[in-house]
Amino acid sequence: MTVTSPKGFRASGVAAGLKASGGLDVAVVVNDGPDATVAGVFTANRVKAAPVLWSQQVLKGGVVRAVVLNSGGANACTGSQGFRDTHATAEHAAAVLRSGSKKPLLIGAGDVAVCSTGLIGELLPMDRLLPGVTAAVKALDTGSGEKAAEAIMTTDTVAKNVHVERDGWSVGGIAKGAGMLAPALATMLVVLTTDAVAGSEALDTALREATRLTFDRIDADGCMSTNDTVLLLASGASDVQPSQEELTAAVTEACHALAQKLIADAEGATKHIAIEVLGAASEADAVEVGRTVARNNLVKTALFGNDPNWGRILAAVGTTQAAFAPDRVDVGVNGVWVCRGGAAAEDRSKVDLSGRDVTIQVHLHEGEMDATIWTTDLSHAYVHENSAYST
Amino acid sequence: MTVTSPKGFRASGVAAGLKASGGLDVAVVVNDGPDATVAGVFTANRVKAAPVLWSQQVLKGGVVRAVVLNSGGANACTGSQGFRDTHATAEHAAAVLRSGSKKPLLIGAGDVAVCSTGLIGELLPMDRLLPGVTAAVKALDTGSGEKAAEAIMTTDTVAKNVHVERDGWSVGGIAKGAGMLAPALATMLVVLTTDAVAGSEALDTALREATRLTFDRIDADGCMSTNDTVLLLASGASDVQPSQEELTAAVTEACHALAQKLIADAEGATKHIAIEVLGAASEADAVEVGRTVARNNLVKTALFGNDPNWGRILAAVGTTQAAFAPDRVDVGVNGVWVCRGGAAAEDRSKVDLSGRDVTIQVHLHEGEMDATIWTTDLSHAYVHENSAYST
Repeated sequence: MTVTSPKGFRASGVAAGLKASGGLDVAVVVNDGPDATVAGVFTANRVKAAPVLWSQQVLKGGVVRAVVLNSGGANACTGSQGFRDTHATAEHAAAVLRSGSKKPLLIGAGDVAVCSTGLIGELLPMDRLLPGVTAAVKALDTGSGEKAAEAIMTTDTVAKNVHVERDGWSVGGIAKGAGMLAPALATMLVVLTTDAVAGSEALDTALREATRLTFDRIDADGCMSTNDTVLLLASGASDVQPSQEELTAAVTEACHALAQKLIADAEGATKHIAIEVLGAASEADAVEVGRTVARNNLVKTALFGNDPNWGRILAAVGTTQAAFAPDRVDVGVNGVWVCRGGAAAEDRSKVDLSGRDVTIQVHLHEGEMDATIWTTDLSHAYVHENSAYST
Repeated sequence: MTVTSPKGFRASGVAAGLKASGGLDVAVVVNDGPDATVAGVFTANRVKAAPVLWSQQVLKGGVVRAVVLNSGGANACTGSQGFRDTHATAEHAAAVLRSGSKKPLLIGAGDVAVCSTGLIGELLPMDRLLPGVTAAVKALDTGSGEKAAEAIMTTDTVAKNVHVERDGWSVGGIAKGAGMLAPALATMLVVLTTDAVAGSEALDTALREATRLTFDRIDADGCMSTNDTVLLLASGASDVQPSQEELTAAVTEACHALAQKLIADAEGATKHIAIEVLGAASEADAVEVGRTVARNNLVKTALFGNDPNWGRILAAVGTTQAAFAPDRVDVGVNGVWVCRGGAAAEDRSKVDLSGRDVTIQVHLHEGEMDATIWTTDLSHAYVHENSAYST
């Protein structure tokens, strides 16, 4: 139930020695067609890693036959050498897929997207990566999607796969990402596949709507990666052409499932927090309020301490530009309305924060728009993982 | 060397039982004149505490004779009862100052500013606060400024005083604030005094310029308080009227000294970090880049772990709107240029992060404007203090 579940895709994951642990670290996903349409969204960070710059160029051609992914190094902030390395990786993958694969594909480097994840600022060990790509191409299989999911893990504690089935067609996917889950994407690599028949424009429409409602609404620590990439590849192998609405719904369902897996596995989190903003004047207001509360370190530490400190929530709302009146805002924590009309209401001792799941409701009483942002708490483990990461 | 060092001011600090510890928790500062001009800046948070709403009204009258300050409760998010309590505090202080003080002052509630700090969302215990104000007025003395500084401490570990001397006149001050040090002010109460002769407009000009360059450039955790207040009171008792430039320089010097004391005492910090942004196209760009780096949890945890992780710094810069080209940015950490032109340069192992003081330099190579933002790291102690604060 993964990236190879839809018809027309093969994948693999191998150990190339990029990870000190010796674990799987190079993955390849191949679209055997008949179609090779594609859509993608990338980090909004202006400092973009070499593989992001490369893949953005590749997608302009409208065709992607293969995706090469590696963990163990982000190839970000690596200058022109970093870009040449990404180009060489795509060239190498295309050459091996033309000649060395059981099913030769007549493709060039311009048909190969590249994704990397890991530490920023260091060149990739190409002497290990390229043999790894060769091995990964040899290992390609219609049953190996879960190995690809494993090969892209960094601080993830579990591999993340999804499969959304429809009548005669489906959407599958893999994802990695556990820190830097942020606005407009995260240190997140996602490859989605579908055997639906769909043109690049239909895929793009579906993917943008899906990410707006899912990956763009998770925010673990407000930090934005240099490498975020979400790709959607369509093989057309099912011969079914869903409507735009059906396609968007299925892609959104797959993205929602993966986004929830990402936030559930966020570095050092002890809480899985949903911030529901209700009664906003606009969707933008609702998202701004939710995101601002999600990023507030004082709210996040309070929840780590099982403290329903609604004053900090209200203070965070006060820093937004959203339409609201301070004396009309209600705040609920796990169903207890501890604040009504901007002042204390139900007894905060009634709030049970002993579980992992927390729901915060902020009712602005300004309109009819709602939005939910998912986030995590700020724990000792977060500080530990992120202070020890590169050492 | 405190708020009572300039001529014409008395102050006091007493224990009224607002703090569970039994420490000093109510302070009064009185301007005996002959002048009673004033300027103030307040939190930009749209959720403003009752004392902020009150003091903003009082300052519109252009005269402040007394400031009542309390720790042990912020009187924020307390609805109309909270505002009535602040009003009653000012009425009570004015009445006691008219009748009960050694030097009776003919003032009304409209001449009394009020500042509060502590937990949000709870009403103040007025049955303890008002007797505390009475006792504080009785204790007023020209030598007791440091007791006032002590009475406004919350999680501060040291009282914060300043005195900047000029030829025949001076600027004194007290401050509190150790968490929520943020953009456009912090959970910060500051009372500055001067015996210079200065009109309200001159004070306002001096104070806005000073805060723009000092309190607005410290940022411990990106959170913005509901209660931030900085007041500047002038007595004219020196009979010296400095130029606007001289006044602004002295007020800025006093604010800078207090701001550095605030950031040095930020909750749970193990590092005192200066982020110097160089070569920006505008001051706004320099401040935006500095503030964005200062707020980035991944940068802050890396520095806690003594890790010169310049990739995270560059990734933070990439989320700003400032003018810069990713392949032209240099990053220095404690004098070692670990990144030049957006890629690795000097060996990161040369960076010594063993001390408390850290200087990060980000050179954008876009223009001539510089700005420095001061911040702290994100430590286990920060998480601990902020997860345990209200329990």
